[in-house]
Amino acid sequence: MEKKGAILIISGPSGCGKSTLLKNVYKDISDYYFSISTTTREPRLGEKDGVDYFYVSREMFEEDIKNGYFLEWAEVHGNYYGTSLKPIKKALSKGKLVIFDIDVQGHEIVRKKLNDLVTSVFITTPTLDELEQRLYERNTDSKEVISKRLDNARQEIKSFQKYDYFIVNDDLKKASKELIAIANIARVKSKLHEKEVIIKNWLNF
Amino acid sequence: MEKKGAILIISGPSGCGKSTLLKNVYKDISDYYFSISTTTREPRLGEKDGVDYFYVSREMFEEDIKNGYFLEWAEVHGNYYGTSLKPIKKALSKGKLVIFDIDVQGHEIVRKKLNDLVTSVFITTPTLDELEQRLYERNTDSKEVISKRLDNARQEIKSFQKYDYFIVNDDLKKASKELIAIANIARVKSKLHEKEVIIKNWLNF
Repeated sequence: MEKKGAILIISGPSGCGKSTLLKNVYKDISDYYFSISTTTREPRLGEKDGVDYFYVSREMFEEDIKNGYFLEWAEVHGNYYGTSLKPIKKALSKGKLVIFDIDVQGHEIVRKKLNDLVTSVFITTPTLDELEQRLYERNTDSKEVISKRLDNARQEIKSFQKYDYFIVNDDLKKASKELIAIANIARVKSKLHEKEVIIKNWLNF
Repeated sequence: MEKKGAILIISGPSGCGKSTLLKNVYKDISDYYFSISTTTREPRLGEKDGVDYFYVSREMFEEDIKNGYFLEWAEVHGNYYGTSLKPIKKALSKGKLVIFDIDVQGHEIVRKKLNDLVTSVFITTPTLDELEQRLYERNTDSKEVISKRLDNARQEIKSFQKYDYFIVNDDLKKASKELIAIANIARVKSKLHEKEVIIKNWLNF
Protein backbone atom coordinates (compact mmCIF):
# COMPACT_ATOMS: atom_id res chain seq x y z
CA MET A 1 0.00 0.00 0.00
CA GLU A 2 1.19 3.52 -0.85
CA LYS A 3 2.48 5.46 2.12
CA LYS A 4 0.42 8.51 2.87
CA GLY A 5 0.98 10.96 5.70
CA ALA A 6 -1.45 13.06 7.63
CA ILE A 7 -1.82 16.72 8.54
CA LEU A 8 -2.34 18.24 11.98
CA ILE A 9 -3.25 21.92 12.02
CA ILE A 10 -2.84 23.86 15.24
CA SER A 11 -4.27 27.34 15.61
CA GLY A 12 -4.86 29.71 18.47
CA PRO A 13 -4.06 33.27 19.49
CA SER A 14 -0.45 34.34 20.11
CA GLY A 15 0.18 33.83 23.80
CA CYS A 16 -2.07 30.77 24.24
CA GLY A 17 1.00 28.59 24.76
CA LYS A 18 1.19 26.71 21.44
CA SER A 19 4.99 26.61 21.27
CA THR A 20 5.45 25.25 24.79
CA LEU A 21 2.73 22.66 24.21
CA LEU A 22 4.30 21.56 20.94
CA LYS A 23 7.69 21.09 22.59
CA ASN A 24 6.03 18.71 25.07
CA VAL A 25 4.26 16.79 22.34
CA TYR A 26 7.37 16.23 20.23
CA LYS A 27 8.81 14.00 22.97
CA ASP A 28 5.85 11.63 22.68
CA ILE A 29 5.12 11.32 18.99
CA SER A 30 7.30 10.02 16.19
CA ASP A 31 7.73 10.46 12.48
CA TYR A 32 6.43 14.01 12.27
CA TYR A 33 7.51 17.02 10.22
CA PHE A 34 6.91 20.50 11.59
CA SER A 35 6.06 22.87 8.80
CA ILE A 36 8.12 26.05 9.12
CA SER A 37 6.25 29.07 7.82
CA THR A 38 7.78 31.84 5.78
CA THR A 39 7.21 35.39 6.99
CA THR A 40 8.14 38.98 6.28
CA ARG A 41 7.89 40.03 9.94
CA GLU A 42 11.00 40.80 11.98
CA PRO A 43 12.38 37.96 14.15
CA ARG A 44 11.55 38.33 17.85
CA LEU A 45 14.35 38.18 20.42
CA GLY A 46 15.72 34.61 20.42
CA GLU A 47 13.99 33.49 17.24
CA LYS A 48 16.11 31.85 14.56
CA ASP A 49 15.84 31.77 10.77
CA GLY A 50 14.99 28.24 9.60
CA VAL A 51 13.84 27.23 13.09
CA ASP A 52 10.98 29.55 14.04
CA TYR A 53 10.32 30.93 10.56
CA PHE A 54 12.02 31.51 7.28
CA TYR A 55 12.45 35.30 7.31
CA VAL A 56 12.29 36.88 3.86
CA SER A 57 11.73 40.31 2.32
CA ARG A 58 8.34 41.46 1.04
CA GLU A 59 9.72 41.42 -2.51
CA MET A 60 10.81 37.78 -2.23
CA PHE A 61 7.49 36.76 -0.66
CA GLU A 62 5.49 38.43 -3.40
CA GLU A 63 7.65 36.73 -6.04
CA ASP A 64 6.87 33.31 -4.48
CA ILE A 65 3.15 34.11 -4.45
CA LYS A 66 3.32 34.85 -8.18
CA ASN A 67 5.14 31.56 -8.81
CA GLY A 68 2.47 29.56 -6.93
CA TYR A 69 4.95 28.25 -4.37
CA PHE A 70 2.59 28.58 -1.39
CA LEU A 71 0.03 26.07 -0.16
CA GLU A 72 -1.50 29.01 1.70
CA TRP A 73 -0.51 32.56 2.58
CA ALA A 74 -2.08 35.59 4.22
CA GLU A 75 -1.32 39.10 5.37
CA VAL A 76 -1.79 39.50 9.14
CA HIS A 77 -0.96 42.56 11.25
CA GLY A 78 0.72 44.06 8.17
CA ASN A 79 3.07 41.11 7.60
CA TYR A 80 2.96 38.20 5.17
CA TYR A 81 2.86 34.60 6.46
CA GLY A 82 2.83 31.53 4.19
CA THR A 83 3.49 27.80 3.83
CA SER A 84 5.64 26.50 0.99
CA LEU A 85 4.12 23.53 -0.79
CA LYS A 86 7.20 21.52 -1.74
CA PRO A 87 8.48 20.29 1.69
CA ILE A 88 4.89 19.41 2.69
CA LYS A 89 4.42 17.17 -0.35
CA LYS A 90 7.73 15.46 0.32
CA ALA A 91 6.94 14.79 3.99
CA LEU A 92 3.46 13.46 3.17
CA SER A 93 4.84 11.06 0.56
CA LYS A 94 7.15 9.67 3.26
CA GLY A 95 4.12 8.97 5.45
CA LYS A 96 4.95 11.68 8.01
CA LEU A 97 2.55 13.58 10.25
CA VAL A 98 2.90 17.16 9.02
CA ILE A 99 2.20 19.69 11.77
CA PHE A 100 1.13 23.24 10.91
CA ASP A 101 0.98 26.16 13.32
CA ILE A 102 -1.19 28.50 11.25
CA ASP A 103 -4.10 30.90 11.74
CA VAL A 104 -7.80 30.40 11.05
CA GLN A 105 -7.52 31.68 7.47
CA GLY A 106 -4.70 29.22 6.76
CA HIS A 107 -6.73 26.41 8.34
CA GLU A 108 -9.65 27.07 6.03
CA ILE A 109 -7.47 27.06 2.92
CA VAL A 110 -5.54 23.89 3.80
CA ARG A 111 -8.75 22.11 4.76
CA LYS A 112 -10.30 23.05 1.44
CA LYS A 113 -7.28 21.79 -0.50
CA LEU A 114 -6.36 18.65 1.48
CA ASN A 115 -9.49 17.85 3.50
CA ASP A 116 -9.02 14.06 3.66
CA LEU A 117 -5.67 14.43 5.40
CA VAL A 118 -6.51 17.16 7.90
CA THR A 119 -7.17 16.99 11.64
CA SER A 120 -7.32 20.36 13.35
CA VAL A 121 -7.25 21.75 16.86
CA PHE A 122 -7.85 25.23 18.23
CA ILE A 123 -5.98 26.18 21.40
CA THR A 124 -7.10 28.95 23.75
CA THR A 125 -6.54 30.40 27.15
CA PRO A 126 -9.64 30.09 29.38
CA THR A 127 -10.47 33.80 28.94
CA LEU A 128 -9.38 36.85 26.98
CA ASP A 129 -8.18 38.52 30.19
CA GLU A 130 -5.76 35.68 30.78
CA LEU A 131 -4.45 35.98 27.22
CA GLU A 132 -3.80 39.69 27.76
CA GLN A 133 -1.95 38.96 30.98
CA ARG A 134 0.24 36.32 29.30
CA LEU A 135 1.11 38.64 26.42
CA TYR A 136 2.24 41.35 28.88
CA GLU A 137 4.23 38.82 30.91
CA ARG A 138 5.93 37.48 27.77
CA ASN A 139 7.24 41.00 27.29
CA THR A 140 8.08 40.61 23.59
CA ASP A 141 5.49 42.90 22.03
CA SER A 142 4.71 46.60 22.29
CA LYS A 143 1.42 47.71 23.83
CA GLU A 144 0.18 48.50 20.31
CA VAL A 145 1.02 45.01 18.98
CA ILE A 146 -0.61 43.38 22.02
CA SER A 147 -3.75 45.39 21.39
CA LYS A 148 -3.76 44.19 17.76
CA ARG A 149 -3.24 40.59 18.89
CA LEU A 150 -6.18 40.80 21.30
CA ASP A 151 -8.45 42.21 18.59
CA ASN A 152 -7.34 39.39 16.35
CA ALA A 153 -7.93 36.75 19.07
CA ARG A 154 -11.44 38.09 19.59
CA GLN A 155 -12.11 37.51 15.88
CA GLU A 156 -10.35 34.12 15.64
CA ILE A 157 -12.21 32.61 18.61
CA LYS A 158 -15.43 32.91 16.60
CA SER A 159 -14.06 30.42 14.06
CA PHE A 160 -13.10 27.66 16.45
CA GLN A 161 -16.22 25.64 15.80
CA LYS A 162 -14.75 24.85 12.37
CA TYR A 163 -11.99 22.85 14.09
CA ASP A 164 -12.16 19.13 14.91
CA TYR A 165 -10.97 19.66 18.49
CA PHE A 166 -10.18 22.41 20.92
CA ILE A 167 -7.94 22.60 23.94
CA VAL A 168 -8.24 25.06 26.81
CA ASN A 169 -4.66 25.46 27.90
CA ASP A 170 -5.13 26.07 31.62
CA ASP A 171 -3.00 23.11 32.78
CA LEU A 172 0.10 22.33 30.72
CA LYS A 173 0.23 18.64 31.65
CA LYS A 174 -3.42 18.02 30.83
CA ALA A 175 -3.28 20.07 27.64
CA SER A 176 -0.15 18.21 26.48
CA LYS A 177 -1.87 14.87 27.03
CA GLU A 178 -4.83 16.06 24.96
CA LEU A 179 -2.63 17.33 22.15
CA ILE A 180 -0.76 14.00 22.05
CA ALA A 181 -4.10 12.16 21.76
CA ILE A 182 -5.09 14.45 18.89
CA ALA A 183 -1.73 13.99 17.13
CA ASN A 184 -2.11 10.21 17.36
CA ILE A 185 -5.65 10.24 16.05
CA ALA A 186 -4.69 12.38 13.06
CA ARG A 187 -3.07 9.38 11.41
CA VAL A 188 -6.09 7.14 11.99
CA LYS A 189 -8.41 9.80 10.64
CA SER A 190 -6.27 10.23 7.55
CA LYS A 191 -7.24 6.71 6.54
CA LEU A 192 -10.88 7.62 6.07
CA HIS A 193 -10.25 7.87 2.32
CA GLU A 194 -9.73 4.10 2.43
CA LYS A 195 -13.38 3.60 3.36
CA GLU A 196 -14.50 3.29 -0.24
CA VAL A 197 -11.92 0.57 -0.88
CA ILE A 198 -13.10 -1.42 2.13
CA ILE A 199 -16.74 -1.19 1.12
CA LYS A 200 -15.83 -2.50 -2.33
CA ASN A 201 -13.83 -5.40 -0.86
CA TRP A 202 -16.78 -6.34 1.27
CA LEU A 203 -19.75 -5.91 -1.01
CA ASN A 204 -18.47 -6.93 -4.46
CA PHE A 205 -17.96 -10.64 -4.20
CA MET B 1 -15.64 21.42 37.35
CA GLU B 2 -18.00 18.47 37.45
CA LYS B 3 -16.41 15.17 36.46
CA LYS B 4 -17.88 13.72 33.31
CA GLY B 5 -16.81 10.54 31.62
CA ALA B 6 -16.87 9.57 27.98
CA ILE B 7 -18.21 6.67 25.94
CA LEU B 8 -16.33 4.57 23.40
CA ILE B 9 -18.49 2.28 21.28
CA ILE B 10 -16.83 -0.60 19.46
CA SER B 11 -18.71 -2.56 16.81
CA GLY B 12 -17.79 -5.10 14.18
CA PRO B 13 -18.74 -8.57 13.04
CA SER B 14 -18.12 -11.59 15.30
CA GLY B 15 -14.71 -12.91 14.35
CA CYS B 16 -13.13 -9.54 13.48
CA GLY B 17 -10.91 -9.79 16.56
CA LYS B 18 -12.54 -7.26 18.88
CA SER B 19 -11.88 -9.19 22.10
CA THR B 20 -8.18 -9.72 21.40
CA LEU B 21 -7.78 -6.08 20.41
CA LEU B 22 -9.53 -4.89 23.56
CA LYS B 23 -7.26 -7.01 25.75
CA ASN B 24 -4.27 -5.24 24.19
CA VAL B 25 -5.80 -1.82 24.68
CA TYR B 26 -6.58 -2.31 28.35
CA LYS B 27 -2.87 -2.46 29.12
CA ASP B 28 -2.39 1.05 27.75
CA ILE B 29 -5.36 3.07 28.92
CA SER B 30 -6.50 3.88 32.43
CA ASP B 31 -9.66 4.71 34.28
CA TYR B 32 -12.04 2.83 32.00
CA TYR B 33 -15.14 0.75 32.66
CA PHE B 34 -16.04 -2.05 30.26
CA SER B 35 -19.78 -2.34 29.94
CA ILE B 36 -20.83 -5.97 30.28
CA SER B 37 -23.90 -6.74 28.21
CA THR B 38 -26.77 -8.90 29.35
CA THR B 39 -27.84 -11.70 27.01
CA THR B 40 -30.19 -14.64 26.74
CA ARG B 41 -27.83 -16.63 24.51
CA GLU B 42 -25.97 -19.70 25.84
CA PRO B 43 -22.38 -19.11 27.07
CA ARG B 44 -19.71 -20.30 24.59
CA LEU B 45 -17.01 -22.66 25.77
CA GLY B 46 -14.78 -20.75 28.23
CA GLU B 47 -17.10 -17.77 28.67
CA LYS B 48 -17.98 -16.71 32.20
CA ASP B 49 -21.07 -15.13 33.68
CA GLY B 50 -20.28 -11.57 34.85
CA VAL B 51 -17.12 -11.45 32.74
CA ASP B 52 -18.17 -11.96 29.13
CA TYR B 53 -21.87 -11.36 29.62
CA PHE B 54 -24.53 -11.52 32.25
CA TYR B 55 -26.48 -14.61 31.15
CA VAL B 56 -30.19 -14.43 31.98
CA SER B 57 -33.41 -16.13 30.94
CA ARG B 58 -35.74 -14.68 28.33
CA GLU B 59 -38.34 -14.07 31.06
CA MET B 60 -35.91 -12.06 33.18
CA PHE B 61 -34.73 -10.03 30.17
CA GLU B 62 -38.29 -9.19 29.14
CA GLU B 63 -39.07 -8.12 32.71
CA ASP B 64 -36.09 -5.70 32.66
CA ILE B 65 -37.24 -4.27 29.32
CA LYS B 66 -40.65 -3.56 30.85
CA ASN B 67 -39.00 -1.85 33.83
CA GLY B 68 -36.92 0.43 31.57
CA TYR B 69 -33.63 -0.90 32.95
CA PHE B 70 -31.85 -0.95 29.55
CA LEU B 71 -30.01 1.88 27.86
CA GLU B 72 -30.38 -0.17 24.68
CA TRP B 73 -31.42 -3.70 23.78
CA ALA B 74 -32.05 -5.74 20.64
CA GLU B 75 -32.88 -9.22 19.43
CA VAL B 76 -30.12 -10.63 17.20
CA HIS B 77 -29.89 -14.18 15.80
CA GLY B 78 -32.89 -15.08 17.98
CA ASN B 79 -31.28 -13.94 21.25
CA TYR B 80 -31.68 -10.79 23.34
CA TYR B 81 -28.70 -8.53 24.03
CA GLY B 82 -28.87 -5.37 26.16
CA THR B 83 -27.00 -2.80 28.23
CA SER B 84 -28.17 -1.95 31.74
CA LEU B 85 -28.31 1.77 32.41
CA LYS B 86 -27.36 1.95 36.09
CA PRO B 87 -23.68 0.91 36.04
CA ILE B 88 -23.08 3.17 33.01
CA LYS B 89 -24.42 6.22 34.81
CA LYS B 90 -22.29 5.44 37.84
CA ALA B 91 -19.09 5.03 35.81
CA LEU B 92 -19.74 8.24 33.85
CA SER B 93 -20.27 10.24 37.04
CA LYS B 94 -16.87 9.03 38.22
CA GLY B 95 -15.30 10.39 35.02
CA LYS B 96 -14.54 6.97 33.55
CA LEU B 97 -14.23 6.02 29.89
CA VAL B 98 -17.11 3.59 29.39
CA ILE B 99 -16.38 1.06 26.65
CA PHE B 100 -19.23 -0.70 24.84
CA ASP B 101 -18.90 -3.70 22.56
CA ILE B 102 -22.29 -3.49 20.86
CA ASP B 103 -23.77 -3.89 17.37
CA VAL B 104 -24.81 -1.24 14.86
CA GLN B 105 -28.37 -1.05 16.21
CA GLY B 106 -27.01 -0.47 19.73
CA HIS B 107 -24.62 2.17 18.42
CA GLU B 108 -27.45 4.13 16.83
CA ILE B 109 -29.53 4.08 20.01
CA VAL B 110 -26.70 5.09 22.37
CA ARG B 111 -25.59 7.83 19.97
CA LYS B 112 -29.11 9.21 19.86
CA LYS B 113 -29.41 9.22 23.65
CA LEU B 114 -25.90 10.34 24.68
CA ASN B 115 -24.44 11.90 21.53
CA ASP B 116 -22.16 14.45 23.26
CA LEU B 117 -20.28 11.69 25.07
CA VAL B 118 -19.89 9.15 22.25
CA THR B 119 -16.90 8.27 20.09
CA SER B 120 -17.37 5.18 17.95
CA VAL B 121 -15.25 2.79 15.92
CA PHE B 122 -16.15 0.01 13.51
CA ILE B 123 -13.71 -2.90 13.27
CA THR B 124 -13.52 -5.23 10.28
CA THR B 125 -11.43 -7.89 8.68
CA PRO B 126 -10.06 -6.79 5.27
CA THR B 127 -12.61 -8.95 3.40
CA LEU B 128 -15.66 -11.12 4.02
CA ASP B 129 -13.70 -14.22 2.94
CA GLU B 130 -11.21 -13.63 5.71
CA LEU B 131 -14.01 -13.26 8.24
CA GLU B 132 -15.47 -16.60 7.14
CA GLN B 133 -12.07 -18.25 7.48
CA ARG B 134 -11.57 -16.85 11.01
CA LEU B 135 -15.01 -18.01 12.13
CA TYR B 136 -14.26 -21.56 10.93
CA GLU B 137 -10.82 -21.50 12.60
CA ARG B 138 -12.33 -20.29 15.88
CA ASN B 139 -14.37 -23.45 15.85
CA THR B 140 -17.00 -22.26 18.33
CA ASP B 141 -20.04 -21.98 16.05
CA SER B 142 -22.00 -24.43 13.93
CA LYS B 143 -22.00 -24.03 10.14
CA GLU B 144 -25.52 -22.64 10.41
CA VAL B 145 -24.56 -20.00 13.00
CA ILE B 146 -21.51 -18.98 10.92
CA SER B 147 -23.74 -18.54 7.90
CA LYS B 148 -26.03 -16.28 9.99
CA ARG B 149 -23.04 -14.29 11.23
CA LEU B 150 -21.79 -13.72 7.69
CA ASP B 151 -25.22 -12.54 6.52
CA ASN B 152 -25.28 -10.20 9.48
CA ALA B 153 -21.77 -8.91 8.78
CA ARG B 154 -22.76 -8.19 5.17
CA GLN B 155 -25.60 -6.02 6.53
CA GLU B 156 -23.60 -4.34 9.31
CA ILE B 157 -20.73 -3.29 7.06
CA LYS B 158 -23.16 -1.01 5.22
CA SER B 159 -23.60 1.06 8.40
CA PHE B 160 -19.98 1.72 9.13
CA GLN B 161 -20.01 5.20 7.66
CA LYS B 162 -22.09 6.25 10.68
CA TYR B 163 -19.06 5.60 12.90
CA ASP B 164 -16.40 8.18 13.77
CA TYR B 165 -13.54 5.81 12.96
CA PHE B 166 -12.89 2.40 11.48
CA ILE B 167 -10.08 -0.09 11.88
CA VAL B 168 -9.14 -2.82 9.43
CA ASN B 169 -7.76 -5.50 11.71
CA ASP B 170 -5.17 -7.08 9.43
CA ASP B 171 -2.20 -6.45 11.75
CA LEU B 172 -2.84 -6.79 15.49
CA LYS B 173 -0.04 -4.43 16.54
CA LYS B 174 -1.08 -1.67 14.16
CA ALA B 175 -4.77 -2.12 14.95
CA SER B 176 -4.08 -2.00 18.71
CA LYS B 177 -2.17 1.26 18.31
CA GLU B 178 -5.07 2.75 16.39
CA LEU B 179 -7.62 1.63 18.96
CA ILE B 180 -5.52 3.14 21.77
CA ALA B 181 -5.40 6.45 19.87
CA ILE B 182 -9.19 6.34 19.49
CA ALA B 183 -9.70 5.50 23.18
CA ASN B 184 -7.53 8.46 24.18
CA ILE B 185 -9.32 10.88 21.87
CA ALA B 186 -12.72 9.83 23.19
CA ARG B 187 -12.11 11.83 26.37
CA VAL B 188 -11.01 14.93 24.48
CA LYS B 189 -14.04 14.72 22.20
CA SER B 190 -16.37 14.37 25.16
CA LYS B 191 -15.45 17.93 26.12
CA LEU B 192 -17.03 19.39 23.03
CA HIS B 193 -20.10 20.27 25.09
CA GLU B 194 -17.86 22.79 26.87
CA LYS B 195 -17.53 24.80 23.67
CA GLU B 196 -20.52 26.98 24.49
CA VAL B 197 -19.03 27.84 27.88
CA ILE B 198 -15.72 28.86 26.31
CA ILE B 199 -17.39 31.06 23.71
CA LYS B 200 -19.31 32.84 26.50
CA ASN B 201 -16.13 33.37 28.54
CA TRP B 202 -14.47 34.90 25.52
CA LEU B 203 -17.14 37.05 23.98
CA ASN B 204 -19.12 38.43 26.93
CA PHE B 205 -16.76 40.85 28.57
